[in-house]
Amino acid sequence: MSAATAAPLPIAADGELRVGVLGVGRIGRMHAELLHRQVGGARVSRIHDAYAPAAAAVGTQLGVAVSDSTAALLAADDVDAVAICTSTDTHVELIVAAAQAGKAIFCEKPISLDLAEMDRALAAVEAAGVPFQIGFNRRFDPAHASVRAAVVDGTVGDPQIVRISSRDPEPPPLEYVRHSGGIFLDMTIHDFDMARFVTGSEVVSVSAQGALRIRPEFAEAGDVDTAVVTLQHENGCLTTIDNSRQAAYGYDQRVEVHGSRGMAASEDPRAHTGIVRTAAGEHAPSLPHFFVDRYTVAYLAQWQAFVAALRDGRTPPVTAADGRAPLAIGLAAGRSLRERRPVSLAEIEADAASASGSNGASA
Amino acid sequence: MSAATAAPLPIAADGELRVGVLGVGRIGRMHAELLHRQVGGARVSRIHDAYAPAAAAVGTQLGVAVSDSTAALLAADDVDAVAICTSTDTHVELIVAAAQAGKAIFCEKPISLDLAEMDRALAAVEAAGVPFQIGFNRRFDPAHASVRAAVVDGTVGDPQIVRISSRDPEPPPLEYVRHSGGIFLDMTIHDFDMARFVTGSEVVSVSAQGALRIRPEFAEAGDVDTAVVTLQHENGCLTTIDNSRQAAYGYDQRVEVHGSRGMAASEDPRAHTGIVRTAAGEHAPSLPHFFVDRYTVAYLAQWQAFVAALRDGRTPPVTAADGRAPLAIGLAAGRSLRERRPVSLAEIEADAASASGSNGASA
Amino acid sequence: MSAATAAPLPIAADGELRVGVLGVGRIGRMHAELLHRQVGGARVSRIHDAYAPAAAAVGTQLGVAVSDSTAALLAADDVDAVAICTSTDTHVELIVAAAQAGKAIFCEKPISLDLAEMDRALAAVEAAGVPFQIGFNRRFDPAHASVRAAVVDGTVGDPQIVRISSRDPEPPPLEYVRHSGGIFLDMTIHDFDMARFVTGSEVVSVSAQGALRIRPEFAEAGDVDTAVVTLQHENGCLTTIDNSRQAAYGYDQRVEVHGSRGMAASEDPRAHTGIVRTAAGEHAPSLPHFFVDRYTVAYLAQWQAFVAALRDGRTPPVTAADGRAPLAIGLAAGRSLRERRPVSLAEIEADAASASGSNGASA
Amino acid sequence: MSAATAAPLPIAADGELRVGVLGVGRIGRMHAELLHRQVGGARVSRIHDAYAPAAAAVGTQLGVAVSDSTAALLAADDVDAVAICTSTDTHVELIVAAAQAGKAIFCEKPISLDLAEMDRALAAVEAAGVPFQIGFNRRFDPAHASVRAAVVDGTVGDPQIVRISSRDPEPPPLEYVRHSGGIFLDMTIHDFDMARFVTGSEVVSVSAQGALRIRPEFAEAGDVDTAVVTLQHENGCLTTIDNSRQAAYGYDQRVEVHGSRGMAASEDPRAHTGIVRTAAGEHAPSLPHFFVDRYTVAYLAQWQAFVAALRDGRTPPVTAADGRAPLAIGLAAGRSLRERRPVSLAEIEADAASASGSNGASA
Repeated sequence: MSAATAAPLPIAADGELRVGVLGVGRIGRMHAELLHRQVGGARVSRIHDAYAPAAAAVGTQLGVAVSDSTAALLAADDVDAVAICTSTDTHVELIVAAAQAGKAIFCEKPISLDLAEMDRALAAVEAAGVPFQIGFNRRFDPAHASVRAAVVDGTVGDPQIVRISSRDPEPPPLEYVRHSGGIFLDMTIHDFDMARFVTGSEVVSVSAQGALRIRPEFAEAGDVDTAVVTLQHENGCLTTIDNSRQAAYGYDQRVEVHGSRGMAASEDPRAHTGIVRTAAGEHAPSLPHFFVDRYTVAYLAQWQAFVAALRDGRTPPVTAADGRAPLAIGLAAGRSLRERRPVSLAEIEADAASASGSNGASA
Repeated sequence: MSAATAAPLPIAADGELRVGVLGVGRIGRMHAELLHRQVGGARVSRIHDAYAPAAAAVGTQLGVAVSDSTAALLAADDVDAVAICTSTDTHVELIVAAAQAGKAIFCEKPISLDLAEMDRALAAVEAAGVPFQIGFNRRFDPAHASVRAAVVDGTVGDPQIVRISSRDPEPPPLEYVRHSGGIFLDMTIHDFDMARFVTGSEVVSVSAQGALRIRPEFAEAGDVDTAVVTLQHENGCLTTIDNSRQAAYGYDQRVEVHGSRGMAASEDPRAHTGIVRTAAGEHAPSLPHFFVDRYTVAYLAQWQAFVAALRDGRTPPVTAADGRAPLAIGLAAGRSLRERRPVSLAEIEADAASASGSNGASA
Repeated sequence: MSAATAAPLPIAADGELRVGVLGVGRIGRMHAELLHRQVGGARVSRIHDAYAPAAAAVGTQLGVAVSDSTAALLAADDVDAVAICTSTDTHVELIVAAAQAGKAIFCEKPISLDLAEMDRALAAVEAAGVPFQIGFNRRFDPAHASVRAAVVDGTVGDPQIVRISSRDPEPPPLEYVRHSGGIFLDMTIHDFDMARFVTGSEVVSVSAQGALRIRPEFAEAGDVDTAVVTLQHENGCLTTIDNSRQAAYGYDQRVEVHGSRGMAASEDPRAHTGIVRTAAGEHAPSLPHFFVDRYTVAYLAQWQAFVAALRDGRTPPVTAADGRAPLAIGLAAGRSLRERRPVSLAEIEADAASASGSNGASA
Repeated sequence: MSAATAAPLPIAADGELRVGVLGVGRIGRMHAELLHRQVGGARVSRIHDAYAPAAAAVGTQLGVAVSDSTAALLAADDVDAVAICTSTDTHVELIVAAAQAGKAIFCEKPISLDLAEMDRALAAVEAAGVPFQIGFNRRFDPAHASVRAAVVDGTVGDPQIVRISSRDPEPPPLEYVRHSGGIFLDMTIHDFDMARFVTGSEVVSVSAQGALRIRPEFAEAGDVDTAVVTLQHENGCLTTIDNSRQAAYGYDQRVEVHGSRGMAASEDPRAHTGIVRTAAGEHAPSLPHFFVDRYTVAYLAQWQAFVAALRDGRTPPVTAADGRAPLAIGLAAGRSLRERRPVSLAEIEADAASASGSNGASA
């Protein structure tokens, strides 16, 4: 029996899902606020952050209990599910611990920068049979979701080419970049997920190109800031992704699927719908600045989907497999960039199996 | 000394404005939720509704106290400001009572369907010197606001023609229409406000045309469901407004100002930015269905402006005069429709003065 | 038997319609060039212009014969149809003469500024049984035509409100305005035609408002440069038209029909589809500057329709009645503006009948 | 002294450039009609086509002389320039012959499918010092040209990523594909040109991926029908191109440049600007069907630029080098696809030099 059909977890007597939030930095705090105030059927019951003042501030703001430790939070009776919003290097241990504690798990992406580590986390989830959802929030954006819907319902026919543009408004600091796993695991990973999401087809080969055009100092971290990646899917579809760490005009996030019968696309929204026309032409406002502006609706819908799935005993809509595949693609992209050749996913998996094998005794 | 420069009201020790909400029907509940959960620097401290179960439900949901009566709410120490969200026929009495209780006042539009009654309410506000804001939420829509900004900063030059389209997705029930004051006071009143807002110029004459095309039974209420109104402004600008009680394609809300140097317009947003192209052409999603979908951002900004004005001791941005003028324009529009001729605002004011004079002894 | 079903006129042995162009000023020259070079099945066979050098230049350019006089052109065997592109005050006499000469007639709008004179011209056309088309070119614009199509095929349901914006980029000289019949007969006449075209319903009443905001000196000609006109149609639809003699941002030409099931609109095209996005927002190019830029495709389609109708023995698609109705509406608009009241078409027709009756002996 | 600054050729006494058109199939006939009827300062003086009836038909239609042979046309005194619109395999010989005859040359793309052959043609042009222009018409599209302009004037800053979509509405017949040189030389060649045009930077490396998704039978010709190509430019910019032989929704042609300060894009035009909104959403018309619909304005501007350059003694704006570079890129793309690796342009040039060297004795 798969975890997907596990009975719903115990939920509070009032029928609300009680969520413990681990990590209330920028993204964790946003999740906590959304969950507590705007998601019907759920509330934040406890929070924890290694930096106690942050936890205290959010606890006061939302009027929720602060746990002194992760262990305390995981042991609490009034926690049905956990939201893991800490730094990436802690995700695997927290997933394992939460699974062993029998909690439903929501984890921010990426789970890990290492396939073997990820597999360890996912094995723990599988063993515990707890519901698990990975935070690929863009799947819940109504425009991106409409692109997938147009594939699923046959409107665009068989997908042949996918174009994804994904640009941030500003590059992160070098210090962040050093531990990020590189642009493909930090940023493009969302696009790898999107490519799988809209085509419904696995990726078999990756060809990546990159350049340093924005922050030459990222060379110290062995990273690039500008990239174009081409994916080949199992069904023959080709996906082209372009990324930039700095789009002067805002947060540029577009997806297009071209198929045998038509195309579907999600265009960039503007900050509002006002325009001005003069002899100089037409002027319209900028794009939303960054992900909070663009994707709040998606973050909300992501939580609503998680809560609904748990309530109904269904598998949450973004699965462990959905969390794993983009990491493998990202590793292939990194190798392709370094070795200047297309890299197959089979090669990445073979290496992982071999690495895992050599560690087999302890696994 | 004007109320505008009154010292800020006492505010809770934690620095939050404590708001008592009178009326928690559809619109009141929306205001209460926004205020309590999403407006920084404010919280709902008490609510009251003549229908006790509604008050109880919202009180529980938000975790705020329920007052048994309007008087009790107005007498409470933990209420700095009131939000009047009851039916129109109660607004004047509630404004008078709240003003006498020294509370800052936010009132949903319209204040009254009668000029003399409105003047009585506004006189009470003036006498008490309390801050007052009327709920013309569309002024806070970023797109409509950008149109006004393009006039104020000179980009479009002197306004010459304004076009306003305002259509609801579905007509209200006949019973509602009977007490609504008619389409001009119930619906077009927002557009009269918008015409003043974007031009910065008072209206001097009104010419209205109407038809029954959607709900023939509105004839029983002496109302129309389709209307075109032309306004002449003091500065020579002409505004044309068109209204419909039923736009099959959603909530259509657009404003355009054409001036000597250019034009500015607020276009309709779509539900999202996804599109589909096939041999049949391009398909994009519908407009937002109704005001909650379209104007949540504006409702939020409206509250933020109210709270900020009170905190800073400034006049709230939509004044008593802004509440009064559209009523006079609406009365002129009704007369123009009935008498099939342009009607000047001077004529409406003269009649009001005369009615007020004849009632003078008792006033 | 109506003129509409008259047998096709004799056409040249090579099957081309031979057109004589009367008047080769700006608009006549454009028609001559389009007809001669881009309209399949037609060619210009002769031209005439009272200003001989203009005729000579165009004759040389196109390689076509120049006639010394209107009479000579009308008497020529190699002229199947005439295009009347002279000044408005000559149209009636030329129509009468061309009809008596048995030529098919295309005439630029307006036919006349006087209803009785127009009726004299149309009577001559009727008596001669010659095909006749009036130059309301905007009917042939693909976007405006798509609006009508969406009414005709039922997509938008019963028309309830029509909005028409029509703005020129630059005002004409005062000298032109003096003889133009005023803004309603010179400019709005296109919009009156459009209102009838897209609704398929006659106009019964007109209410006009105007202002002098651009060229104060037009007061000498008794004219306005800014206007808003409301029309009531026989079927209950309301049309609101706004006009300006000067839109700083280009040639603004939009039509919207709102009906019981939806809406259809023709938006302004841009000069091209290039855009630029920077931190300052999005910039797109201006509208086409004026009618030649916007409507060349429509002018071409207009001629193709005329030629096709003649070839097939069908009534040309814009009839004598279509030429007459907008004049009556324009006269009503002028009276409404002067007398500050709605004016019915019945009143205009009664006056025309009375004027015609008093001239009856000579008619 | 370069050919670019050669004195203008003799031109007819009336100041018009007299053009001889070689090949009046679909594209040649279009060029002949545009040139003869709509390009000021030029006319078609002679035409030739190996298929005599085609030449006769176009000659009659336009009223121009038909030459019996290419040689006769090239020998004629009334031919200042030739337009080479025949099949690709004849281009080199015709260029050589025309250059030796001292005629200015316009040649449809591609010049040749073979670099050495192309160099032979370009050497003949260089030797004769005649003006030469290659038919990359898309450079003259106002929207694409605006993208380049935004790079040249610095608005978008340094180009970092270029995205080009180019899709035809329908695949050509297999027979055509067999002789086309494959998708990269037949179709993508326009995009290779566009990448150089908008970035102003040469391409140094090419990585291509392709698939057969539309016409499996193209496998017989060793071709693909769906492709994604990534280019690396000398200045570090990355260009991603996606092509399809069949876009169900029309002729999709878009270019975007993302740079350090912003982005510029050419969007797809629609057939017209009409829209319809119903409860089902918004509907807009399709894209133009194919190149004649989309690019007529560009074809016209291309001829105007050629004529103006000749009249003014300037180098025509799309040079021999512009004709050569995309062929080399296309050859690299083909090799990359076959060998599944990135291919540098240096490698292609080295091979060409080597091939040329081995043929050196006879060259």
